[in-house]
Amino acid sequence: MFKKVLIANRGEIAVRIIRACRELGIQTVAVYSDIDKEALHTQIADEAVCIGGALAKDSYLNITNILSACVLTGADAIHPGFGFLSENAKFSKMCKECNIKFIGPDFQSIELMGNKAHAREVMKKADVPVVPGFEGTIESEEHALDIAKEIGYPVMIKAAAGGGGKGIRIAKDDAEFLKGYKTAKAESSACFGDDTLYIEKFVEEPRHIEFQILADEYGNVIHLGERECSLQRKNQKVLEEAPSSVLNEKTREEMGEIAKRAAKAVNYKNAGTIEFLFDKNNNYYFMEMNTRIQVEHPITEMITGVDIVKEQIKIASGEKLKLTQDDIKITGHAIECRINAEDPFNDFRPCPGVIDELYLPGGLGIRLDSAVYCGYKIPHCYDSMIAKLIAYGENREEAIIKMKRALSEFGVGGVKTNIEFQYWILELEEFLRGDYDTSFLGKKLVTRNA
Amino acid sequence: MFKKVLIANRGEIAVRIIRACRELGIQTVAVYSDIDKEALHTQIADEAVCIGGALAKDSYLNITNILSACVLTGADAIHPGFGFLSENAKFSKMCKECNIKFIGPDFQSIELMGNKAHAREVMKKADVPVVPGFEGTIESEEHALDIAKEIGYPVMIKAAAGGGGKGIRIAKDDAEFLKGYKTAKAESSACFGDDTLYIEKFVEEPRHIEFQILADEYGNVIHLGERECSLQRKNQKVLEEAPSSVLNEKTREEMGEIAKRAAKAVNYKNAGTIEFLFDKNNNYYFMEMNTRIQVEHPITEMITGVDIVKEQIKIASGEKLKLTQDDIKITGHAIECRINAEDPFNDFRPCPGVIDELYLPGGLGIRLDSAVYCGYKIPHCYDSMIAKLIAYGENREEAIIKMKRALSEFGVGGVKTNIEFQYWILELEEFLRGDYDTSFLGKKLVTRNA
Repeated sequence: MFKKVLIANRGEIAVRIIRACRELGIQTVAVYSDIDKEALHTQIADEAVCIGGALAKDSYLNITNILSACVLTGADAIHPGFGFLSENAKFSKMCKECNIKFIGPDFQSIELMGNKAHAREVMKKADVPVVPGFEGTIESEEHALDIAKEIGYPVMIKAAAGGGGKGIRIAKDDAEFLKGYKTAKAESSACFGDDTLYIEKFVEEPRHIEFQILADEYGNVIHLGERECSLQRKNQKVLEEAPSSVLNEKTREEMGEIAKRAAKAVNYKNAGTIEFLFDKNNNYYFMEMNTRIQVEHPITEMITGVDIVKEQIKIASGEKLKLTQDDIKITGHAIECRINAEDPFNDFRPCPGVIDELYLPGGLGIRLDSAVYCGYKIPHCYDSMIAKLIAYGENREEAIIKMKRALSEFGVGGVKTNIEFQYWILELEEFLRGDYDTSFLGKKLVTRNA
Repeated sequence: MFKKVLIANRGEIAVRIIRACRELGIQTVAVYSDIDKEALHTQIADEAVCIGGALAKDSYLNITNILSACVLTGADAIHPGFGFLSENAKFSKMCKECNIKFIGPDFQSIELMGNKAHAREVMKKADVPVVPGFEGTIESEEHALDIAKEIGYPVMIKAAAGGGGKGIRIAKDDAEFLKGYKTAKAESSACFGDDTLYIEKFVEEPRHIEFQILADEYGNVIHLGERECSLQRKNQKVLEEAPSSVLNEKTREEMGEIAKRAAKAVNYKNAGTIEFLFDKNNNYYFMEMNTRIQVEHPITEMITGVDIVKEQIKIASGEKLKLTQDDIKITGHAIECRINAEDPFNDFRPCPGVIDELYLPGGLGIRLDSAVYCGYKIPHCYDSMIAKLIAYGENREEAIIKMKRALSEFGVGGVKTNIEFQYWILELEEFLRGDYDTSFLGKKLVTRNA
């Protein structure tokens, strides 16, 4: 096992990793930007090294400084957390070259999964369902129509060079397709100077359902069930729950096996997440793989009893997985609310500043992962998430009740937060029925604001 | 179910009860003394009523004011918590007379269990083992010797009128007995003006092991396993754990059945605790019954998944127990550390004052039941406990590791606390072996201070 681990991150995930290390008897080194001198992760680690200025590029993204801190303190491994350098293949590779263990997958896996087209190819080969689409060159309008028919309506026409929603058309039949193809081609040409189009299946009312996997360095791979992450605002997850209301035991097992196959296809090691789009007809498609720990990992920990961060460290240190698939039993229901310092009535604008009052919820079934304290100044230059509030209950209904109770006693003074907004979500009828997809929250917000 | 519950208590247990009510959809009324205007329980309840001055007798023990607050707010039940009026039979009776449901047993059960001699008699009749002792009149020295022999050595000779350790002698054989009997008689006469003596079995190296029971109003009684509460300082519990290291499955079942029999013998309703003395030869004896919720109830909740406070409320509202004995499965291990504002290096003198810095532990497996916040002024006139820190692990070793980790990040500024003292206990060899009785901590402290 490692003697000393450097945590190349900040905020609650840095604290989370320090906790895991401490419970494993491993010394910890925090790194911090000069604005984070008083941050909790800086304070509670065994050692702390300043690695540069407040801007992420000067500190938490500064590979040279982080590797220097590692050498300086004699740490034998680096945990990258999420965000920052966690999916940076170059960083993982440089760690290896410096003989420092990167607590995550090989740089090859990061690289492969970072390239969406390449990942799609590998997944197809491994019989992992991907969103059906045509990958060759479209020769003519007639050819395009044949492709659309073969994929089956509805289809999506996308500008290959596109972004920001430009050059995208949805078609439900031949007529719509022919019309959409023409306008998309013109728009694409006008916007990007390139009229190459791409045609794929349009996934209707998709849910974002992801599977947590653990893979050791000896080829053993298990999954820890799924997380339902469809409650999003502008592609940012807001509230996650596990298990998902729409999976039955059979589908869970099936998707879990596919998630394992996806990991095996890239010889994946360590913790990872296979994200699926899940449509209203119960079809699901590989979306991408996150080659790191996820923000929402605690809900999986609550329903499986597995400490995922500890497993990451054990796997990286060369231990074999002690758990087999049969050991994984899903019990109860967990919900995570991301608590952000932001203003829900001003387009969720981040609200940095000093927390001058703080009442943290607690009691039976409540877990809080946070790095803030009363008197803490939330910097303007990082993520606005200040806490992850996790509620666990025997079933979904109990978890919701507990979360509402915990939110009702969560008090933060000095900055605006989304606590009441989260409470509002928990009372929405559609949420209570478990009936929501990735577009739901955005639509509801439009109604609320109207 | 009740519509509104008044909580006749303060501090963390008041907050704990408010949480349970809120999760059950019940409105809450806090009562507070004038010094507790800013207390958390006052703030988070739906309503709050001032019931008098800072001294407990003027407020939290003021039956008239509490009942008036209840009538004023239209609460239909009172939860007394622990301490204060929780074991006051008169209060329970007056609630009944006012048509307010007392969330606890009938006043008759409280009264009976409050009278130690009477409780002993009832338990003996119900075949619940009590410490063997002679209850009649000792006629002579020879008679006394016969009694001692019949009870079996070692025996304890006690002044019937005694207290404070005066007039107590331990005897391991006839010679010691005859000598001890004479001196105890003389001492008792000199100290108390009464030389009546009492002879009972001396329980060697006793542990304090207690069983949690739940009994509904229809005669259904279950137990939730035991708590090991032998780590005490001056008869005050310091750290509790569940399950106990010394009980095997068979003894647990046996004692649990006896605990249920004890509850049934007094027609007990609601949650209660049967306390046993458990000696080094695995003999156990009924000590007393606590007719209320205990401070240390969370460790039982962690290993059984049962919310004991919610069960109390449901039972009092007339619901039948949904749980049967077979539903109760003990999983994992839980430890509770009582965090007090006190000075462990000055005879544990309470340290009231303002908390001006606060870092609360969290994360996987950590539960915090508390009523303090940064800026809170701990009053001088109540208990010094500021938090209950509970760690849950798959097994005892993991629970200890988690507790140490949590204590290491628990920071309180402005007042002294016993946090480091609790950490010190967790590193003691005897504790790690689970090898301690009620005298252990006192002896260790003498060594530490020497």
